[in-house]
Amino acid sequence: MRLAKLREEVLEANLNLVRRGLVLSTFGNASGVARKEGLIVIKPSGVPYHRMKSKDFVVADLQGQVVEGRLRPSSDLPTHATLYRAFPAIGGIAHTHSEYATAWSQARKPIPCLGTTHADYFRGAIPLTEVMTDDEVAGQYEASTGAVIIRAFKGLDPMAIPAVLVTNHGPFAWGADPCEAAENAWMLEAAARMAFLTAAVNADASALGRTLHDRHFLRKHGKQAYYGQKKTKN
Amino acid sequence: MRLAKLREEVLEANLNLVRRGLVLSTFGNASGVARKEGLIVIKPSGVPYHRMKSKDFVVADLQGQVVEGRLRPSSDLPTHATLYRAFPAIGGIAHTHSEYATAWSQARKPIPCLGTTHADYFRGAIPLTEVMTDDEVAGQYEASTGAVIIRAFKGLDPMAIPAVLVTNHGPFAWGADPCEAAENAWMLEAAARMAFLTAAVNADASALGRTLHDRHFLRKHGKQAYYGQKKTKN
Amino acid sequence: MRLAKLREEVLEANLNLVRRGLVLSTFGNASGVARKEGLIVIKPSGVPYHRMKSKDFVVADLQGQVVEGRLRPSSDLPTHATLYRAFPAIGGIAHTHSEYATAWSQARKPIPCLGTTHADYFRGAIPLTEVMTDDEVAGQYEASTGAVIIRAFKGLDPMAIPAVLVTNHGPFAWGADPCEAAENAWMLEAAARMAFLTAAVNADASALGRTLHDRHFLRKHGKQAYYGQKKTKN
Amino acid sequence: MRLAKLREEVLEANLNLVRRGLVLSTFGNASGVARKEGLIVIKPSGVPYHRMKSKDFVVADLQGQVVEGRLRPSSDLPTHATLYRAFPAIGGIAHTHSEYATAWSQARKPIPCLGTTHADYFRGAIPLTEVMTDDEVAGQYEASTGAVIIRAFKGLDPMAIPAVLVTNHGPFAWGADPCEAAENAWMLEAAARMAFLTAAVNADASALGRTLHDRHFLRKHGKQAYYGQKKTKN
Repeated sequence: MRLAKLREEVLEANLNLVRRGLVLSTFGNASGVARKEGLIVIKPSGVPYHRMKSKDFVVADLQGQVVEGRLRPSSDLPTHATLYRAFPAIGGIAHTHSEYATAWSQARKPIPCLGTTHADYFRGAIPLTEVMTDDEVAGQYEASTGAVIIRAFKGLDPMAIPAVLVTNHGPFAWGADPCEAAENAWMLEAAARMAFLTAAVNADASALGRTLHDRHFLRKHGKQAYYGQKKTKN
Repeated sequence: MRLAKLREEVLEANLNLVRRGLVLSTFGNASGVARKEGLIVIKPSGVPYHRMKSKDFVVADLQGQVVEGRLRPSSDLPTHATLYRAFPAIGGIAHTHSEYATAWSQARKPIPCLGTTHADYFRGAIPLTEVMTDDEVAGQYEASTGAVIIRAFKGLDPMAIPAVLVTNHGPFAWGADPCEAAENAWMLEAAARMAFLTAAVNADASALGRTLHDRHFLRKHGKQAYYGQKKTKN
Repeated sequence: MRLAKLREEVLEANLNLVRRGLVLSTFGNASGVARKEGLIVIKPSGVPYHRMKSKDFVVADLQGQVVEGRLRPSSDLPTHATLYRAFPAIGGIAHTHSEYATAWSQARKPIPCLGTTHADYFRGAIPLTEVMTDDEVAGQYEASTGAVIIRAFKGLDPMAIPAVLVTNHGPFAWGADPCEAAENAWMLEAAARMAFLTAAVNADASALGRTLHDRHFLRKHGKQAYYGQKKTKN
Repeated sequence: MRLAKLREEVLEANLNLVRRGLVLSTFGNASGVARKEGLIVIKPSGVPYHRMKSKDFVVADLQGQVVEGRLRPSSDLPTHATLYRAFPAIGGIAHTHSEYATAWSQARKPIPCLGTTHADYFRGAIPLTEVMTDDEVAGQYEASTGAVIIRAFKGLDPMAIPAVLVTNHGPFAWGADPCEAAENAWMLEAAARMAFLTAAVNADASALGRTLHDRHFLRKHGKQAYYGQKKTKN
């Protein structure tokens, strides 16, 4: 029952990636986790988005072992599993090759926070992972991708900055549930695009002041939030 | 009755922001003012555009105090109220995070007038506000945003240049009514995009000569206007 | 009868400008000429494209005097009339503020021919007009716009290079009939966009060699053309 | 029978070029080959994509001689025929003037592999052909275009890097069948766009390490592939 609902949410999150123009062909994937059951629901590998059905989704445990599903899971499942184990507050993950966030990943530059659009969703620059070693790439590549992300968040709160750039690859985003993860992937792309344009207009554009950055983030997040309508969950 | 019509106009102006691709997610907002009644109609905060109905809109007085509506108003209401008090000729305001205008805001550069597309709508460069102090940001942030805009228009006519860039935030545009405000937000984005492309082709592109600038602006505005069809209001 | 058909063609050409994303709001216009009758059919001024009907179009003589129509003609009519008098081979004109071609106009740079896409339609760089003098701008501005275009074609064949950039304004394109003019405006924008991207990748990109340039142009135009299917008119 | 199916596949591949935004107007073409019969099916020249029917397609032998069809074949047929003779593993070819790949062609730069999106489809930089001599251009131009592509693949496997940039012209892509060729043309444009953005963010962005490059390519191709679902053909 719980899992049936999660399947629907994960399908919806995957479709949102398509609707927002964040993925093309079979690139990208979104997943969700049922914390109590310790189960992950994830997109099958290489299946076109327009043909996916919720029953095609694969169920795995937090070690990344498949427990249900007739199709192969996304090859990035070990990355998702690693993140779910390391970041207990997150309920969903979205991985895309969205153009501008990927360009920053390929350029090996974190995305600086240059304005309030970014600050509304991310309380700091979007971190960039270290370059993976040849051994990490040749070995358990996808699990190592998770490990390198975790290292990039040493001293950072993954719920305050719910996205990362994997060097020479692309972005991962997450959130309280699969659809929030997909929304953060969308907002990341918007921030990446605006930062790109800003840097082109002024190569020396400087990061937002901390006071303004916090003001915008805290207008939307946490107990003092006053943006939006009152609701049970943030 | 008057207010019912204004609600519809404000809804239409908000929807025009979506149709023109100027807003994403719940960013942005448009409002209108009934001058005789001294009342502002504004978008509710954080409500998705596709679910808004005119009855959801919030009514406030010119001090930004809500007088009607079951939803919270846009968190930017104090900015709108400040502008309506300072600029008596304006009847509507549109705030967006449109990409190119926001990039100029983040780059901390006014948008120079480089061609007749810009000159047709704005009789000069689009001004950039000063950077707000930490005290302004930490205090009545949204009202201070209005104040910093007003300071940027010292010596300028807000109806001749109906838009501004708030540093590190994004654009506000206005007009005789809510839909004209939304149209000016659209034209601002077009001018911002063309100025971006122009600067990329030629970093030393110079501003339009004053004679050509005025010729185009005055073809469309004021008593000597000869563009478009004859009509009662400009 | 002849004029009724021309009205339909001019409407279609104007709508093609919208379909190709070359105009926004009420910017731009297309016209056609009935050479035997010495009459021009042109878009009315400032009328939204989606509300235009062929009966709204204005008929003028080659001096730009209106002879039929209840609406004001496009304010650019004197430019069109000047071009029809100077370039006897053209049957239609399209004026847009398409983004990339306008950026080159604003940057005051002709569009170099950097590839075969450009060469297929234009047998040379797209010329840029001189900057108009203050007297020309303050006087018969629109007619002077036509005159400055004609000066830019001294020694050039307007049918071999059916487009021009008016400095700080935007492009005009033309062709054998109104729809060919609109198509050339579309191909101009494509060439402008590709030249923009090319210059960004390699600021020293050099123009196409003359032999390759001619080979592509002559594959499509003139007696030796072998592109496309056999037809009566080119 | 066999040929009837190939006609449908070639039509579908051509339509995919339109659906992916890779061609405009009548630019571009896709073809397929029936190896056993030694016959090529190719798009007719200059026919609008939205009016093409599978019966309009032209059938030619591997020397580029038309054997069936009432319309002229694409003027690029000799290029296709040359490639089919030189690259025996390919079953389809797609030629476009897609914007970013064309910009790299015009800039006379190969597209470096800067990330895993590129590596997933192409096992190396996208090669750039030599500049053709005036004699080649003035002579059998289209056949020479094929020859210059073949020279660019000296020492390279065309199935590991299924695309090329023809200098000052645009890209050709190929694959096991016509639709795979069209997909590779699409992925090429995505890689070209991301490489463009990356270079704009960081002009010194360096190519992907060989280990990561191979890991991604071999996740999707060859016997060790583990991306996607099990299937008969790769």
